[in-house]
Amino acid sequence: MTGTNIRAAIVREFGAPLEVDQYELPEPGPHQALVRVLTSGVCHTDLHAAEGDWPVKPSPPFVPGHEGVGIVEAVGPDVTDVQVGDLIGNAWLWSACGECEYCESGWETLCEAQQNGGYSVDGSFGDHMIVDTRYAARVPEGADPLEVAPVLCAGVTVYKALKRTEARPGQWVAITGIGGLGHIAVQYAVAMGLRVVAVDVSDEKLELAKKHGAEVTVNAREVDPIAAVHEATGGTHAVVVTAVHPAAFGQAIGFTRRGGTIVFVGLPPGDFPAPIFDIVLKGLTIRGSIVGTRRDLAEALDFYARGLIHPTVTARPLEDINAVFDEMRAGKIDGRVVVDFREN
Amino acid sequence: MTGTNIRAAIVREFGAPLEVDQYELPEPGPHQALVRVLTSGVCHTDLHAAEGDWPVKPSPPFVPGHEGVGIVEAVGPDVTDVQVGDLIGNAWLWSACGECEYCESGWETLCEAQQNGGYSVDGSFGDHMIVDTRYAARVPEGADPLEVAPVLCAGVTVYKALKRTEARPGQWVAITGIGGLGHIAVQYAVAMGLRVVAVDVSDEKLELAKKHGAEVTVNAREVDPIAAVHEATGGTHAVVVTAVHPAAFGQAIGFTRRGGTIVFVGLPPGDFPAPIFDIVLKGLTIRGSIVGTRRDLAEALDFYARGLIHPTVTARPLEDINAVFDEMRAGKIDGRVVVDFREN
Amino acid sequence: MTGTNIRAAIVREFGAPLEVDQYELPEPGPHQALVRVLTSGVCHTDLHAAEGDWPVKPSPPFVPGHEGVGIVEAVGPDVTDVQVGDLIGNAWLWSACGECEYCESGWETLCEAQQNGGYSVDGSFGDHMIVDTRYAARVPEGADPLEVAPVLCAGVTVYKALKRTEARPGQWVAITGIGGLGHIAVQYAVAMGLRVVAVDVSDEKLELAKKHGAEVTVNAREVDPIAAVHEATGGTHAVVVTAVHPAAFGQAIGFTRRGGTIVFVGLPPGDFPAPIFDIVLKGLTIRGSIVGTRRDLAEALDFYARGLIHPTVTARPLEDINAVFDEMRAGKIDGRVVVDFREN
Amino acid sequence: MTGTNIRAAIVREFGAPLEVDQYELPEPGPHQALVRVLTSGVCHTDLHAAEGDWPVKPSPPFVPGHEGVGIVEAVGPDVTDVQVGDLIGNAWLWSACGECEYCESGWETLCEAQQNGGYSVDGSFGDHMIVDTRYAARVPEGADPLEVAPVLCAGVTVYKALKRTEARPGQWVAITGIGGLGHIAVQYAVAMGLRVVAVDVSDEKLELAKKHGAEVTVNAREVDPIAAVHEATGGTHAVVVTAVHPAAFGQAIGFTRRGGTIVFVGLPPGDFPAPIFDIVLKGLTIRGSIVGTRRDLAEALDFYARGLIHPTVTARPLEDINAVFDEMRAGKIDGRVVVDFREN
Repeated sequence: MTGTNIRAAIVREFGAPLEVDQYELPEPGPHQALVRVLTSGVCHTDLHAAEGDWPVKPSPPFVPGHEGVGIVEAVGPDVTDVQVGDLIGNAWLWSACGECEYCESGWETLCEAQQNGGYSVDGSFGDHMIVDTRYAARVPEGADPLEVAPVLCAGVTVYKALKRTEARPGQWVAITGIGGLGHIAVQYAVAMGLRVVAVDVSDEKLELAKKHGAEVTVNAREVDPIAAVHEATGGTHAVVVTAVHPAAFGQAIGFTRRGGTIVFVGLPPGDFPAPIFDIVLKGLTIRGSIVGTRRDLAEALDFYARGLIHPTVTARPLEDINAVFDEMRAGKIDGRVVVDFREN
Repeated sequence: MTGTNIRAAIVREFGAPLEVDQYELPEPGPHQALVRVLTSGVCHTDLHAAEGDWPVKPSPPFVPGHEGVGIVEAVGPDVTDVQVGDLIGNAWLWSACGECEYCESGWETLCEAQQNGGYSVDGSFGDHMIVDTRYAARVPEGADPLEVAPVLCAGVTVYKALKRTEARPGQWVAITGIGGLGHIAVQYAVAMGLRVVAVDVSDEKLELAKKHGAEVTVNAREVDPIAAVHEATGGTHAVVVTAVHPAAFGQAIGFTRRGGTIVFVGLPPGDFPAPIFDIVLKGLTIRGSIVGTRRDLAEALDFYARGLIHPTVTARPLEDINAVFDEMRAGKIDGRVVVDFREN
Repeated sequence: MTGTNIRAAIVREFGAPLEVDQYELPEPGPHQALVRVLTSGVCHTDLHAAEGDWPVKPSPPFVPGHEGVGIVEAVGPDVTDVQVGDLIGNAWLWSACGECEYCESGWETLCEAQQNGGYSVDGSFGDHMIVDTRYAARVPEGADPLEVAPVLCAGVTVYKALKRTEARPGQWVAITGIGGLGHIAVQYAVAMGLRVVAVDVSDEKLELAKKHGAEVTVNAREVDPIAAVHEATGGTHAVVVTAVHPAAFGQAIGFTRRGGTIVFVGLPPGDFPAPIFDIVLKGLTIRGSIVGTRRDLAEALDFYARGLIHPTVTARPLEDINAVFDEMRAGKIDGRVVVDFREN
Repeated sequence: MTGTNIRAAIVREFGAPLEVDQYELPEPGPHQALVRVLTSGVCHTDLHAAEGDWPVKPSPPFVPGHEGVGIVEAVGPDVTDVQVGDLIGNAWLWSACGECEYCESGWETLCEAQQNGGYSVDGSFGDHMIVDTRYAARVPEGADPLEVAPVLCAGVTVYKALKRTEARPGQWVAITGIGGLGHIAVQYAVAMGLRVVAVDVSDEKLELAKKHGAEVTVNAREVDPIAAVHEATGGTHAVVVTAVHPAAFGQAIGFTRRGGTIVFVGLPPGDFPAPIFDIVLKGLTIRGSIVGTRRDLAEALDFYARGLIHPTVTARPLEDINAVFDEMRAGKIDGRVVVDFREN
């Protein structure tokens, strides 16, 4: 067996439009499988990858995408943990070393030797992809390939962030930003027994949050959001910040009651102003959280499988990828765009 | 019984020198005791109080001081939890409401109705003070009144901060700033089984850290402190930041290995730049911690009683208080200054 | 003001029937209030109290009852934390010392100087009762006095037990015994995002569990309960044992997957056989949990106030108390019996 | 390359003496290395293995031993995580699946597909052994092969148990049984900042505990151990039970103060009487703990490397293995016996 020719959206140069073209995948090696991709969510990280925004950059040419769902077509030598025909997914945490202090303690997301799907290895913006079977997501039987795709990154990211808040059922959590991540965060929070206050600047998005179970919604453009959150909740026990802009730091600290926890999940460049006096006086915890482990992902998918999570998705063909990136840059995307390969 | 005339250092006006003069204390009420002060540590907070630096200010005239050690001379009606002759101390957490969500869950330091010693109620910069016996520190028998005084605030503050790092015995903690708080932090960390890297800009202070058990010392003026900390430790599991200046945030984040925790204990005005990208990617936790509960204080004193903690102290008469404040402003104080009332 | 004459069910002698008779309460002292009782749940502990079953016994004559709901009629000197007219409740944790290592760390339920309602102090089996306002439950406005009464002990007990399992939303918990405690445990577990398997020997009780959201029910008389639980759940992450009989220990250990936690809440006399080999090999945690703190109780009541908890109750007049105890001895009570004083 | 002929102590039949004879090892496969054994500790588990005591038994012929220290002589295909010449060790957790809920969450010791050294795969009672390089212990440079061997099982077992007590520095832990495990437990506890009370029936062993830093020793044959522990400590925060006999359960519960934790590490057959009333009333936690993960082992070895742990060892030649087992059965072994292959 030699490699596989696929049709994929390829980054050939940072900042240039992706080319939808032929691309060759190697044959699957040990611990690997070749997967026919059905769908792939589009994440802001894909845009950052394509633009080469971050300090450690991928190496063009490469194929972005780390919310891919597909069917195993072939497996590498000695692979026994997945079978041909299985429904599986790739993830940002494409693989990890398995033997470092992080991998050994349930924190593989911090492994310094990790590979990242659609970044350091080719991803799911193609009709086929290679996955590491030890790290690939097991997608529940019966899942809707469109709806489940965003769970693989957006879903697990907010689920993990909610876990990292250490908020307990019955406590209040503010979700700031009801976009691709935030609207899923509301659903996980509700399923976890938390009480949700959603904060955004769009009434439409706040409506969506309400539909998904947010008890309180605050339009930060229309009212003083800190006062509104305190009036409704007495101060939240936790905040998950999906809307990362300079004002978010101060707002999140304002929303929180004493002893509360604020979790950031985005990766914005630059510094944000942290008011140490308030952080100390109020005994706050501020935490960064990045995607989730395989175990977090399995749990996040289990909530989906139980019918508790319904990402808002829009299907698009692969050819639209550059248009989708443009819409993303313009902040025009509601919920999540998912590339659908099944139509082709 | 009417009130008690005492000799105290009194703040009559923010920013003006304290007056050492007669002052009248009320007689002790329910849950209160009158204490003859033997010694009182001098904390930066006393200076902030005297200058009216913080948003919520004390009401002059008042007597600062919240590291006071003394002997119970009289108790209020129905007081049974201390006896005349007991060695006790006041604390920053002079009292709390006992019935809020924080008080009920072991977080009385976050009580919004707390009274603060030497701030919202008169403190220990006088030859007598009033304490709330439910919250006053029980000073171990045989304690040296000079040496134990700083444990009441500086000691418990760093002890609690170390607990809040959640670092486990055998892990590395960086202590940044080996001043009044930091040199005690080194001792608690060592007694807690942690491995210590001390960071300061003074070789003399780093020598003191070494004497107290720091395995590694880093002079941040002479070497790249982040590189030096990583070379020695592979990145610390935790950082306790006692040296709060704008550079401290970035350095602390640089010292920490992935998944680590940084605890701030100071109360500087203004904002500090937080690099969210790094905080998220490295999965860091940043936490504010303020003094400690009665239980924390009892534990901190127990370490002292077991001979594991020896604050560096300099005894000064009450008359020197304005000179001491000047030295504090100039950053000239080594260890902790303790006002000694026994000489007068 | 002198004391208050009330009509109460009085234990005059252990093992003898309670007498419903006149009883005199003292006037409320500091930190106390006199409460007109509306309803009071009847707990197994009341029966144990009346029979003098436990090593440390109450002192007859006394009035049992620690699930009392009522309206403040008068307050003691200097009481400011409740007002006449407030709806409040007594609890098993009638008061605690406020200054021991347990009280200071959020574990007042372990205070060695605690007073227990209806046991070491008179309780709620009378038309009035005295409470310590610092520890009395704040009953939410609009609560149904009959329905809310069992939350004060049965509710908080199982809520706390569920917290002590450390099970996270999405994980499985087995509730063994769907009686007075168990049927409420199912409701809290569901509200906390847990997945519930209910185990009992009565199909009727299992139906009730299903109505309250149990996903799986197992009749331990009809099937091998351990096999059934494993088949449905793969082994539960936690077990709350409300049905304490010698077989319960072994069954609970059998239900649990590796690393799981089993919480016991009952107070049976005698020893139960613990298979250490299995406990070690499976890395299990076995834990005792007793009632809950004021904070736990406030949280438990908040779940009730939000409409998530509906104890099954049967109202009975005070005169029936001995009959109720007989039914309790015979295991004939469904849900919870609540004495209703409003009819008289 | 074909297999390797080694000289080993072989179990050919449960209950019969081991034969010291030639034995053939396969060549190392993927993820494996061939190790020349220098030393191997002898654990009670080896005796249980040789006698076939436990429900799931090994398959004779096999070579026991899971505290083996040696030097890598050859590695299997594609092995890059160890090099020829490295000092490594085998462990009870010889390998695990790497992909189950336990492996993925830092609990590989609970993996249901784990292989156990000297039990389900051949162990270290031979002059060579095969290890899985992903799970083999990295023995610190400069380690004394005799002294470090017991750390690989006895050491990590008690270290992990101490972690599982959740006792914090400054709190009291009782170590019951100062034998092969207990005398090492005392050392870890002291290094972790815990205060130790050692309980045994031998003054000689208690002397050893004192030498290693136990503050209090209690001879359970000479005094009422529960009274003595309470008098000295007010009740311990934790107990690690290495002496598992029926009385141990009750004693451990007696030693513990309210809210404390008792950890069992042994694997005795049969049931032990658990007093549920006391467990509930005192809010106790009882926990089983088995060996430790790779990360625990790396930490345990790090304490050794820092000079904080010195197991008491007696070197013996392989030929003595049956005599050593006899001495073990008779309870005559002090500290740990270590087979020394270097003499032969």
